[in-house]
Amino acid sequence: MKKAVCLISGGIDSFVSAAIAKEKGYDIYCLTIDYSQKNRKEIICAKKIAKFLKSKKHLILKIDLSWTKSALTDKRIKIPQSIHHGIPPTYVPARNTIFISVALSYAESIDAESIFTGINSVDFSGYPDCRPEYIKRFQKLIDIATKKTIEGKKIKLETPLLYLSKSQIIKKGIELGLDFSITWSCYKSGEKPCGKCPSCRLREKGFKEAGIPDPLQ
Amino acid sequence: MKKAVCLISGGIDSFVSAAIAKEKGYDIYCLTIDYSQKNRKEIICAKKIAKFLKSKKHLILKIDLSWTKSALTDKRIKIPQSIHHGIPPTYVPARNTIFISVALSYAESIDAESIFTGINSVDFSGYPDCRPEYIKRFQKLIDIATKKTIEGKKIKLETPLLYLSKSQIIKKGIELGLDFSITWSCYKSGEKPCGKCPSCRLREKGFKEAGIPDPLQ
Repeated sequence: MKKAVCLISGGIDSFVSAAIAKEKGYDIYCLTIDYSQKNRKEIICAKKIAKFLKSKKHLILKIDLSWTKSALTDKRIKIPQSIHHGIPPTYVPARNTIFISVALSYAESIDAESIFTGINSVDFSGYPDCRPEYIKRFQKLIDIATKKTIEGKKIKLETPLLYLSKSQIIKKGIELGLDFSITWSCYKSGEKPCGKCPSCRLREKGFKEAGIPDPLQ
Repeated sequence: MKKAVCLISGGIDSFVSAAIAKEKGYDIYCLTIDYSQKNRKEIICAKKIAKFLKSKKHLILKIDLSWTKSALTDKRIKIPQSIHHGIPPTYVPARNTIFISVALSYAESIDAESIFTGINSVDFSGYPDCRPEYIKRFQKLIDIATKKTIEGKKIKLETPLLYLSKSQIIKKGIELGLDFSITWSCYKSGEKPCGKCPSCRLREKGFKEAGIPDPLQ
């Protein structure tokens, strides 16, 4: 069986992306980076998702990024309560670059031919490391970065959601039989989603446009 | 003062590279990745080097790569006793990609304009992630990967040793007044360097060609 490393955050996008990998016939190996985000609920949901998708293994790797200045890692910076113009305070410097690098290492270690991420450039937070050109340049780097790739084998960075809207992603997930009650999108980690942070707002908009009720509501 | 993040491993190359950053007028911020390498002596030497260079801070970040199949991380794989043809078993999948990604995050977090690494493509171990084309492509990725870079500021990946031989690197270090007795090159971590592993052999050749005695001998 061909193998794929699937980056899993606990949210909807990476869940759907990993399910697409399975649909395409891959054995999936989930990878979650515990980057000391304030929101610990994400890790719990990532574990549930990996189990739901029958991931062959689930590597949860700690990388302490508490020194980054971001609302997601620094207790002194507040989570915004509305969608931000420009790059928001929830931006974590080079987060995707670190995540994909580790995924690359994992992919080479287990001889996987693909890396799947839920990166999306439509209903997203304006992060620089979610744009199509970023993915394109990362692929060019990957093409020569490992032993596997210089031996002529390809490791493909797959971003099946790159050009989809949140509602399209949700519909795709429903079509694949995913249980979104085990996901978490809110930047906070209360009993219920806060409903106000940019991530809650994007999620709400997505379910509304898809005409599907959010199981977390 | 302009700032540089300097990746420091405990070896000669990264020491000289960071000293060059200082020479160029940077305030330096050393970064060492403790990737659960079997050789713990490297971390001790990295600390001594950061102190020697009066690094403003020294971030030592743990990223457990013990799941990679490498002679440097896996106790079951032996350190080779001679220089290898092709890519040796000491290769760690995507190690430099992970290290530079973290350096990028750190550089953006402290508003540094440069990242210095000791990467070398002359007297090196044949690793794919030490080649000039790799550095070139990583720079292209960096150019669009962060908030800082999309705001038009540059983060430059500096590799001052890329085209130097080991003896040239050693001579440069001596010229800069560096104390090589606080470095460690051997892949093992005994009392004295083993003298047989590829890294010891490259070091020996370098000092010999430079006509300088190795303080560890």
